[in-house]
Amino acid sequence: MRYGLVGANGKMGVEIQSYFSSLGDLCVLRKDRGVLEEIERPQVIIDFSSPDAVFETVELCRKYSCGLVIGTTALTEEHFSRLKELSEHVPVVQSYNFSTGIAILKRIIKEYASYFEDWDAAMVEIHHNQKKDAPSGTAKMLKQALGREIPISSIRVGGIFGEHTLIFSNSGETVEITHRALSRRAFVIGVRNAALFVLGKEKGFFSYDDVLESAQAR
Amino acid sequence: MRYGLVGANGKMGVEIQSYFSSLGDLCVLRKDRGVLEEIERPQVIIDFSSPDAVFETVELCRKYSCGLVIGTTALTEEHFSRLKELSEHVPVVQSYNFSTGIAILKRIIKEYASYFEDWDAAMVEIHHNQKKDAPSGTAKMLKQALGREIPISSIRVGGIFGEHTLIFSNSGETVEITHRALSRRAFVIGVRNAALFVLGKEKGFFSYDDVLESAQAR
Amino acid sequence: MRYGLVGANGKMGVEIQSYFSSLGDLCVLRKDRGVLEEIERPQVIIDFSSPDAVFETVELCRKYSCGLVIGTTALTEEHFSRLKELSEHVPVVQSYNFSTGIAILKRIIKEYASYFEDWDAAMVEIHHNQKKDAPSGTAKMLKQALGREIPISSIRVGGIFGEHTLIFSNSGETVEITHRALSRRAFVIGVRNAALFVLGKEKGFFSYDDVLESAQAR
Amino acid sequence: MRYGLVGANGKMGVEIQSYFSSLGDLCVLRKDRGVLEEIERPQVIIDFSSPDAVFETVELCRKYSCGLVIGTTALTEEHFSRLKELSEHVPVVQSYNFSTGIAILKRIIKEYASYFEDWDAAMVEIHHNQKKDAPSGTAKMLKQALGREIPISSIRVGGIFGEHTLIFSNSGETVEITHRALSRRAFVIGVRNAALFVLGKEKGFFSYDDVLESAQAR
Repeated sequence: MRYGLVGANGKMGVEIQSYFSSLGDLCVLRKDRGVLEEIERPQVIIDFSSPDAVFETVELCRKYSCGLVIGTTALTEEHFSRLKELSEHVPVVQSYNFSTGIAILKRIIKEYASYFEDWDAAMVEIHHNQKKDAPSGTAKMLKQALGREIPISSIRVGGIFGEHTLIFSNSGETVEITHRALSRRAFVIGVRNAALFVLGKEKGFFSYDDVLESAQAR
Repeated sequence: MRYGLVGANGKMGVEIQSYFSSLGDLCVLRKDRGVLEEIERPQVIIDFSSPDAVFETVELCRKYSCGLVIGTTALTEEHFSRLKELSEHVPVVQSYNFSTGIAILKRIIKEYASYFEDWDAAMVEIHHNQKKDAPSGTAKMLKQALGREIPISSIRVGGIFGEHTLIFSNSGETVEITHRALSRRAFVIGVRNAALFVLGKEKGFFSYDDVLESAQAR
Repeated sequence: MRYGLVGANGKMGVEIQSYFSSLGDLCVLRKDRGVLEEIERPQVIIDFSSPDAVFETVELCRKYSCGLVIGTTALTEEHFSRLKELSEHVPVVQSYNFSTGIAILKRIIKEYASYFEDWDAAMVEIHHNQKKDAPSGTAKMLKQALGREIPISSIRVGGIFGEHTLIFSNSGETVEITHRALSRRAFVIGVRNAALFVLGKEKGFFSYDDVLESAQAR
Repeated sequence: MRYGLVGANGKMGVEIQSYFSSLGDLCVLRKDRGVLEEIERPQVIIDFSSPDAVFETVELCRKYSCGLVIGTTALTEEHFSRLKELSEHVPVVQSYNFSTGIAILKRIIKEYASYFEDWDAAMVEIHHNQKKDAPSGTAKMLKQALGREIPISSIRVGGIFGEHTLIFSNSGETVEITHRALSRRAFVIGVRNAALFVLGKEKGFFSYDDVLESAQAR
């Protein structure tokens, strides 16, 4: 795959290049803090940068008629409307979380919520001590998938990358489902899945759930 | 519910009476080691005894035209054929494991096996030091639900009632699903679900999976 | 061992008799809700009843010149002063928690607190949904052993008997120590250790920590 | 701290420089694959390279009269004898595992082995699927600290950096102690502790256990 990368020097950008090149992909367009390096036409552009960069990224996709995978956070209504415009011409995958494991968990929880209706439930999420928000966005998303109010315990210690445990218990048994992100690699794998997905689409606005489903259909 | 109980003095028998009576059910027929006590017509008979008792249990169900929930282990072909004959007249639920949590897990694993196709997988099952067989029957059943060969680590220590963990891991993340039976109560709850299920059926041969599905359909 | 039992029909009383008799011990004095049954002189009296019963238990110990193991909770100053008087004549072991595992954990945490000084720490304690107080008394005791303020997450779900996890984490690694009580058996084993300890003492007021230490010295 | 680094471009070398410089330390001597860069006299030299490099590293320490922290694996008798000679002049810390958590665990297990004498014990260690040896060297070391034969389950899945769990269980309770290395950072912190330790010593041959003890004595 020949790909372009916006936010090439950010933490995610560095990891993406390392993982993609280990699989033979070529980074043919690179942009960071306004500096743009164009080597060749990319088949897909990946953007993990800041909201300010989004409009220029959209222009690059139009210029090269290539799809977009965007994981930049804190997007506004205006960003979304521009991304949706773009998706009428090329495929766009937008998500705030590219972890495949979390996407699977969300599906399981949603689908099996009714099976655990009679069970008590609680969540524990553990992250490093630099994380500001609590509960985590992922915890909120999983609670929403479950569809009922449950207590969430947020623990902030040391360097734990990201751990979410959903506990179900009745008077005789417990079921615990734990997801643990080992490193940024958890998300980078998902980004590549999304990039491959984009290569096979003509146009449209997609979430990471669509990428997951498509991988299943194959 | 007015129920009959074969194997009334066994470990499961004692737990069943304790749990059922806490919910207002009445034990109106009791049998153990050949001694039969008939107080009233039961709506359903529950049998957690030994294979020798099965034929007499079948006769009791015929006599009272009532359904059967049977968790007796080590049944032979002959036992099954007699139970199936009986199920042409009354509803029969037969299972070697009445844990709701395990039944749910089996479903999840079967349904999501393809999602974890690219992930490594392994199982750890921990039981008390009196358990003879390894891996446990439940571990084998869960592996079959997953549909691929995975290593199973069996640990036998102390008094742990029964714990099964399925680990999935790729290079960036892990998902662990753990079921823990806290006590015989795990199974007794399932037995009662099965008895209630039987009350609503006319006839037929059912597994605990059918009981689980029916609870969902409601 | 020939032992007496106050609170013989309580949950702990029933478990104590079941476990002690499985090891060949004889219950030769039994008391519950004022009804006293005296068969023979006990070597030690065990009291898991209510504070009201304590003074009569003290009299029984004096009458038979036998030691006491007492796990009754909610004792007042007056109870303690009577128990200490008694301990000038016979050995008395008093504790609110007879779990050997918790006693070991408390020692480890106290002794190794300084090793984890630079690490973040947090505790998670999980109990059944009938438990009223949070955090648990055991969680508070473990925090005190650690000697610093740490966040404690209390989770109340289903039928979990009692689980305490202490998490230490720095930027590169984590250490988790988990204690899980599987059933009342966790405490009954400790009660028997305490009863055996009493048989070997002349007099004195002891905690379960003393029983644990004495077992080590052997 | 001004430090020298042998194996500067290796995985550990890169991590060491990143962590040390984040704390204001200066790398003033750098060596990799025979290429030596000497900027200034180092206060301590750190070697995470290959056994071939050891003799030259010893010469560098003699030249600068500075201490050594060495984590290079697969050392032979001859390497050890040269390191011990060196340690008559300067302080040398040699270890195959610089994780503080593992060093603490080893101490706890050794000291509390007798407390768990009556409990069943087992170990589970989980590592990424690239790890060749099983059980891990750390698992063997922890078993030796416990001083008795126990079953070790080795699981090799995905990208798990390194996880060791020691399980103790009797008929009523369980105690589980888990160490999880989150990344190479687990070892880099220990390397820096060892370097600081070396600065305060005149000479001698030390293990990481000595570094840990010294940190406690402060």
